[in-house]
Amino acid sequence: MRTVISGGTVVTAVGSSPADVLVEGECIVALAAAGSELAEGWAAGADRRIDASGRLVIPGGIDGHTHMEMPFGGTKAADTFETGTKAAAWGGTTTVIDYAIQSRGDSLRQGFDAWLAKADGVCAIDYGFHMIVSDVSEFSLKEMDQLVDDGVSSFKLFMAYPGVFYSDDGQILQAMQRASGNGATVMVHAENGIAIDTLVAQALERGNTAPRFHGETRPSTLEGEATHRAICLAKVTGAPLYIVHLSAMEALDEVTAARDTGQPVFAETCPQYLFLSEEDMARGDFEGAKYVCSPPLRPTAHQAQLWRGLRTNDLSVVATDHCPFCFRQQKELGRENFSKIPNGLPGVEHRMDMIYQGVVSGEITVERWVELTSTTPARMFGLYPKKGTIAPGSDADIVIYNPGLVHTLSAETHHMDVDYSVYEGRRLKGGVETVLSKGRIIVDHGAYHGSAGHGRFLERGLNGYLG
Amino acid sequence: MRTVISGGTVVTAVGSSPADVLVEGECIVALAAAGSELAEGWAAGADRRIDASGRLVIPGGIDGHTHMEMPFGGTKAADTFETGTKAAAWGGTTTVIDYAIQSRGDSLRQGFDAWLAKADGVCAIDYGFHMIVSDVSEFSLKEMDQLVDDGVSSFKLFMAYPGVFYSDDGQILQAMQRASGNGATVMVHAENGIAIDTLVAQALERGNTAPRFHGETRPSTLEGEATHRAICLAKVTGAPLYIVHLSAMEALDEVTAARDTGQPVFAETCPQYLFLSEEDMARGDFEGAKYVCSPPLRPTAHQAQLWRGLRTNDLSVVATDHCPFCFRQQKELGRENFSKIPNGLPGVEHRMDMIYQGVVSGEITVERWVELTSTTPARMFGLYPKKGTIAPGSDADIVIYNPGLVHTLSAETHHMDVDYSVYEGRRLKGGVETVLSKGRIIVDHGAYHGSAGHGRFLERGLNGYLG
Amino acid sequence: MRTVISGGTVVTAVGSSPADVLVEGECIVALAAAGSELAEGWAAGADRRIDASGRLVIPGGIDGHTHMEMPFGGTKAADTFETGTKAAAWGGTTTVIDYAIQSRGDSLRQGFDAWLAKADGVCAIDYGFHMIVSDVSEFSLKEMDQLVDDGVSSFKLFMAYPGVFYSDDGQILQAMQRASGNGATVMVHAENGIAIDTLVAQALERGNTAPRFHGETRPSTLEGEATHRAICLAKVTGAPLYIVHLSAMEALDEVTAARDTGQPVFAETCPQYLFLSEEDMARGDFEGAKYVCSPPLRPTAHQAQLWRGLRTNDLSVVATDHCPFCFRQQKELGRENFSKIPNGLPGVEHRMDMIYQGVVSGEITVERWVELTSTTPARMFGLYPKKGTIAPGSDADIVIYNPGLVHTLSAETHHMDVDYSVYEGRRLKGGVETVLSKGRIIVDHGAYHGSAGHGRFLERGLNGYLG
Amino acid sequence: MRTVISGGTVVTAVGSSPADVLVEGECIVALAAAGSELAEGWAAGADRRIDASGRLVIPGGIDGHTHMEMPFGGTKAADTFETGTKAAAWGGTTTVIDYAIQSRGDSLRQGFDAWLAKADGVCAIDYGFHMIVSDVSEFSLKEMDQLVDDGVSSFKLFMAYPGVFYSDDGQILQAMQRASGNGATVMVHAENGIAIDTLVAQALERGNTAPRFHGETRPSTLEGEATHRAICLAKVTGAPLYIVHLSAMEALDEVTAARDTGQPVFAETCPQYLFLSEEDMARGDFEGAKYVCSPPLRPTAHQAQLWRGLRTNDLSVVATDHCPFCFRQQKELGRENFSKIPNGLPGVEHRMDMIYQGVVSGEITVERWVELTSTTPARMFGLYPKKGTIAPGSDADIVIYNPGLVHTLSAETHHMDVDYSVYEGRRLKGGVETVLSKGRIIVDHGAYHGSAGHGRFLERGLNGYLG
Repeated sequence: MRTVISGGTVVTAVGSSPADVLVEGECIVALAAAGSELAEGWAAGADRRIDASGRLVIPGGIDGHTHMEMPFGGTKAADTFETGTKAAAWGGTTTVIDYAIQSRGDSLRQGFDAWLAKADGVCAIDYGFHMIVSDVSEFSLKEMDQLVDDGVSSFKLFMAYPGVFYSDDGQILQAMQRASGNGATVMVHAENGIAIDTLVAQALERGNTAPRFHGETRPSTLEGEATHRAICLAKVTGAPLYIVHLSAMEALDEVTAARDTGQPVFAETCPQYLFLSEEDMARGDFEGAKYVCSPPLRPTAHQAQLWRGLRTNDLSVVATDHCPFCFRQQKELGRENFSKIPNGLPGVEHRMDMIYQGVVSGEITVERWVELTSTTPARMFGLYPKKGTIAPGSDADIVIYNPGLVHTLSAETHHMDVDYSVYEGRRLKGGVETVLSKGRIIVDHGAYHGSAGHGRFLERGLNGYLG
Repeated sequence: MRTVISGGTVVTAVGSSPADVLVEGECIVALAAAGSELAEGWAAGADRRIDASGRLVIPGGIDGHTHMEMPFGGTKAADTFETGTKAAAWGGTTTVIDYAIQSRGDSLRQGFDAWLAKADGVCAIDYGFHMIVSDVSEFSLKEMDQLVDDGVSSFKLFMAYPGVFYSDDGQILQAMQRASGNGATVMVHAENGIAIDTLVAQALERGNTAPRFHGETRPSTLEGEATHRAICLAKVTGAPLYIVHLSAMEALDEVTAARDTGQPVFAETCPQYLFLSEEDMARGDFEGAKYVCSPPLRPTAHQAQLWRGLRTNDLSVVATDHCPFCFRQQKELGRENFSKIPNGLPGVEHRMDMIYQGVVSGEITVERWVELTSTTPARMFGLYPKKGTIAPGSDADIVIYNPGLVHTLSAETHHMDVDYSVYEGRRLKGGVETVLSKGRIIVDHGAYHGSAGHGRFLERGLNGYLG
Repeated sequence: MRTVISGGTVVTAVGSSPADVLVEGECIVALAAAGSELAEGWAAGADRRIDASGRLVIPGGIDGHTHMEMPFGGTKAADTFETGTKAAAWGGTTTVIDYAIQSRGDSLRQGFDAWLAKADGVCAIDYGFHMIVSDVSEFSLKEMDQLVDDGVSSFKLFMAYPGVFYSDDGQILQAMQRASGNGATVMVHAENGIAIDTLVAQALERGNTAPRFHGETRPSTLEGEATHRAICLAKVTGAPLYIVHLSAMEALDEVTAARDTGQPVFAETCPQYLFLSEEDMARGDFEGAKYVCSPPLRPTAHQAQLWRGLRTNDLSVVATDHCPFCFRQQKELGRENFSKIPNGLPGVEHRMDMIYQGVVSGEITVERWVELTSTTPARMFGLYPKKGTIAPGSDADIVIYNPGLVHTLSAETHHMDVDYSVYEGRRLKGGVETVLSKGRIIVDHGAYHGSAGHGRFLERGLNGYLG
Repeated sequence: MRTVISGGTVVTAVGSSPADVLVEGECIVALAAAGSELAEGWAAGADRRIDASGRLVIPGGIDGHTHMEMPFGGTKAADTFETGTKAAAWGGTTTVIDYAIQSRGDSLRQGFDAWLAKADGVCAIDYGFHMIVSDVSEFSLKEMDQLVDDGVSSFKLFMAYPGVFYSDDGQILQAMQRASGNGATVMVHAENGIAIDTLVAQALERGNTAPRFHGETRPSTLEGEATHRAICLAKVTGAPLYIVHLSAMEALDEVTAARDTGQPVFAETCPQYLFLSEEDMARGDFEGAKYVCSPPLRPTAHQAQLWRGLRTNDLSVVATDHCPFCFRQQKELGRENFSKIPNGLPGVEHRMDMIYQGVVSGEITVERWVELTSTTPARMFGLYPKKGTIAPGSDADIVIYNPGLVHTLSAETHHMDVDYSVYEGRRLKGGVETVLSKGRIIVDHGAYHGSAGHGRFLERGLNGYLG
């Protein structure tokens, strides 16, 4: 089966040029200059020809931060691996990296196996795992080495959520020491959970139970603080550090300062921090609960700083932290107490489109869009060059993107298994037209052709940004 | 009883000028221009005349950080309030502020009363107390207000020493909230004790038991980290913050950055961090144990930065953290395990002389010397203008300092009740000649005329640097 | 003649306390504790007793930056030394330091002599001179040494005003090298005049001739730039640097950064930058011309930063840059062309009162007010302890300040010889009640008792903040 | 003519992968996955097959900063366009961008035409021009627009060399304003030439004539200063700024700070600043003259900072500033006076190899090497995707680089027309094996197959890093 994508503009992280792409089986086998005799020969001899004239031909998106069917506060995230990866595919994302969770008392391996089982045979697109370490012990530290060999090369520690995922600074230090030995990257949820829990208890005691107090009890200063602390611990150990879902300018300033010195510190942000704000959390009729996630949405003044960070590369990745809970029955668990609202937003479907709005408005170039959403995650998480670029030998995970398309986001039409959209009614410019996953067309002009189980587990290598 | 100090140069934090000082009873009653008719009249009519020609007439030193007879690791600091305050007097210090300690399970008041009892009737000079809070609870938080009324306006929390004095960030936050309401200043021992304890356990496991590993397991990065964290918590609460015994340039940089924004953050350093280094901790034959204190002595490169901080006022106070343990029997408790070495150094006697060496070498002016060692502690700790200056109405705590004196420090000759000197054999320029405490000459040309119980408890007011 | 000031609160830079002040002849001879027998004896035996109950007794203000009768653009500043120093006295200022000007082609000495002559015999209060160097040459560099001996220890160079006062970076470097040898302080008007003149020419060419374009053609970035440049040149030479009339947060940031490193860099700001803004320059009917000075008034956002700088001591002095031009006939010279508007504002009379408003609003303490307006200028400009404090032996330049007084500023009532007030109609809290200059009451409860020629030339020493 | 490069590892700025490259005529027509049927078909049908097994296949180097036959101080740079571009080719550089010079009094066009004429018909490889503006006038500002249309999209202004190339800040401001309108990038030689000339005159007057005084009179503080000033001027105008030949950590800090805010500021450094130091300038027997360039070589401590900048992308480009003068007769002009030594070093031949040493030592990755030496210059200077990458449609400027090769640099063996090497005797790892320029093999295993005139003038587009 030979497919030729012709007439489009191939966009990579470095630049754009007209080129035709030849796909055989699961891989990109070759690229040829547009209009060359060779390319025209391909088109003639292909089994299938996709006309990409006027379209961008980009590597499929890689969402480095999802939580499919994650247990949280007695419920679990609404999207399964099946529904969630399908929604991702609809939005032009062809790889997700989800977080396997070690439960307290269990081994890392038990957690990893449980997540492998959940995803096995149901995913629409390829997937990998980071590992959440919530029980640092001599045993689990040793397991880290084995997991790296098994293709799980990044480990997340929580400075937030005491009593649940929280690790103290000594535990984080040990995990970092281990990572510094085995080449893994340590990921940190950087909020000072101990201080925050005090503020939360005080708020509830005063009867401040509405969703907006979720934000007020998690001030951005305490995200900046934790980010600085994680950077210092990483510095002591020599480990590479990746800050997940950075939301606050104070945190960004810490990352910027560390990167200026050459320390291997990286950070991701998410569309919700670029487009939504604390004002959404303050919506009446408990609507604010739809916007409750951690770190919380910030005042709008933070957004311009985050866009600046995306341009300067102090923010290197855009992921979603996709962790949807239905408004009915799930978000409602916190109607009397904001601290009972399940933390998380739906988003895996809209990342590519939302960040493309930054191209439309001139915040970033089209190349930077590809870099932030695909190439850098691939390099950072050990998937390059298999994923993250349009190059001979790479997997044929390709999106034909139509800059001219206009569409409107809504829970009515989205494919995530959740009863609301944080972007309800938002009109976007640019949209996905065709999606190939490993050479197979899984989305095409509004029709879904994928199948559960097409996606397979990816053994990831080490962070490609480390010397 | 009228005493006149004539012919000297009166030095205050602002400037120096020739003036005569008239003392009546416990107070300075007046100052007159040198050589004026008035001054000459005083001299004629005085009961006692002290000729201060060629001498500096300075306010008695205030050592804002001592630990007399403090319990630590099964032993206690070697100087009692009696011996310690007498040694202070010998060195030109006429006020100490010691740390009363709340034991876990006890109230603040119980700790305060215990320390009042220890000091009662035995001190050579006036004294006050800061309060160490080691058990933050609803009850002890409320007690803080009462203690402020009782003249204890500063509360120290530990980010180090888990299981002993350690408070977590939520507890520190609560203490700061309380301080922000009652006007108190929160003092912090800023080292990340949780991470440090991990490093200590690892070192011991590897058989690294010598004194120098005390330093290697407490890297300066983790002092900088904790300093930044304390600053962030203070920012969230609005409380004034005072960093005790700052030793590391990383911590200084954090203080500098916070002060640049106008946040009420203050810091003290100690002579040992200005004159000693990690090389002392590495001395053989377990001699290094003499230099074990926390934070530890740092590489010599830090010293120049600390002197710079003293000039720029990013370091505002020099105190001693006087906490002496004899080498024999006390320091020796840690011969097989550095973590068992009692933490602390003797120093209360030599602070004025050691910092005067900075005047001799041109690091600071003589006015700055007075400011760092007397005036600022008085203002910072609510003792001004009773203490900390030479002015009408102030207590007659006065030191006649002879810049021409040369002497050598040694355990043979010092007055602290400890069997070694960290400055053994060091030759100094400048020395104390006469010391008045509340109008009474207690040290004079090498003779001691003081008495136990002359010193009384000082009820302190609020920090004078807060609007 | 013995005068006693009794019952007041003596305020110095360090603290406040109740004390009585004994003045004999031109000097303060002694201070005594309020209520002491001694003090009461003084009161009984004095020739004159000033009751200062409920009043602040402060050292007379020192305005370190005035331009009496300065030639500028074909006219000259409206206040003579006679009218200007009298207005200063009315406002509680008992010393001014004016700028003598070297004309191009002349020697420094010629300029100095000319200014000595202008001031001779007409001043109400004491005065000194800084020297403006506008013609750096081998000869004038050598003259600097002599002037230091003659009591002129500070030299101002202009980075603005090409063709008039401007010196290029090589000339400034040479002046700094000389200062670094002879102990003088180099003062800099820090605006990039070369770039600004280009912007001015472009504005005029476009027909943008109104007063507000004065501000738009002098962007704050170019003040920050010049400030950084002056700091770098000072660093290369080792000279102490004093930035005059700092107006912009960008410039403040540069000063802050330099001071953090311990470099001897100082800065002054002026009341107009704390209370007025670019909006005043934009007033219609050419009213904006009243507010034209250089650097120009800035957006209001700068004001909070300047107050912060006054608190952190990154701004050490408040002076006025008093340089008044009448609206009629003088400011009007620029009606068709903003670049012809004489640069300068009246202000010498209102500095103490305006900055006291910062005490009223809680921006600064009363001690800091005294420090900024009197003590620091005295120390910085080599007048301490003769001036700048209330201490035995100091000149009896004393102001009795009534915090309870309320008054309104207006050109109708002010004493400066200029036809408008930049603070017209502003209601102030606190005011001067009595002013002593060298022991003589020159202002008292709204009556003037001074005389032209009472003020004498002050030979100044070196900057007291250097080693 | 079809050429296939097979078996190599294709390295781009983003990543490395095994791929075969098909070249037809002057261009790369296609890339195919190594070992694919397609690729094997190419190999079979090609006119020429280059076996790149074990080799890196990289885009030809782009040296963005050369000065062939540049007039300087009465002599001219020793390499002509013919010899210089040939030497470049030997070293794996397939494009140079030289600096055309506007002479004072001439138009830009005259300068551009003169340089076009010098290069015409003699170059071994393609070339473009930046334009040195040394006479800013209304006319030459207008000419800038036309030159942008003619493919000269970058203009260099000098803050150094008063009286020769120097422009004052007003002139630079105007050029930046123009660039901000026409999309051009302003390049700046950032040293404070006015202050430096003063220091030079003083040194000579003191008899300090040896080469090392070239360095001592150009302190790094004055490079930092000028860099900051250029950044401020760029900020006022909105123009993109490119700092050429950055040598000092102070300058790097300024660039870093500006980039952190998102301002479009870029910087290049050169191999000499990474590998040589002021100690070379201090070599005896006038040998130091060989190392005289501006900015001067710095203390070795700067080198680590520059490597850090190359990693953090605060330094984005490595160029050579190739400007060779023979030691005999040319450098010797300054034997009695360092200021007469022609400024400049030979380097165009060794850039790729020298920076590859950073790959060998672990300073940078092989992808970053390609990015710094080829891809970024191509994007920055408007040559991408024609130059700077290995992609279909791009020019077939390709280097086959052998990481296993070991060779030694020497004037005996190099191809630059100059009588010494600054790297004499240095042993390197890695070397060029084969060089294709526009599809033609011009260097192959130590033999030269190129020809004068093969290289053609490149019309460049705008900076690709600007939104």
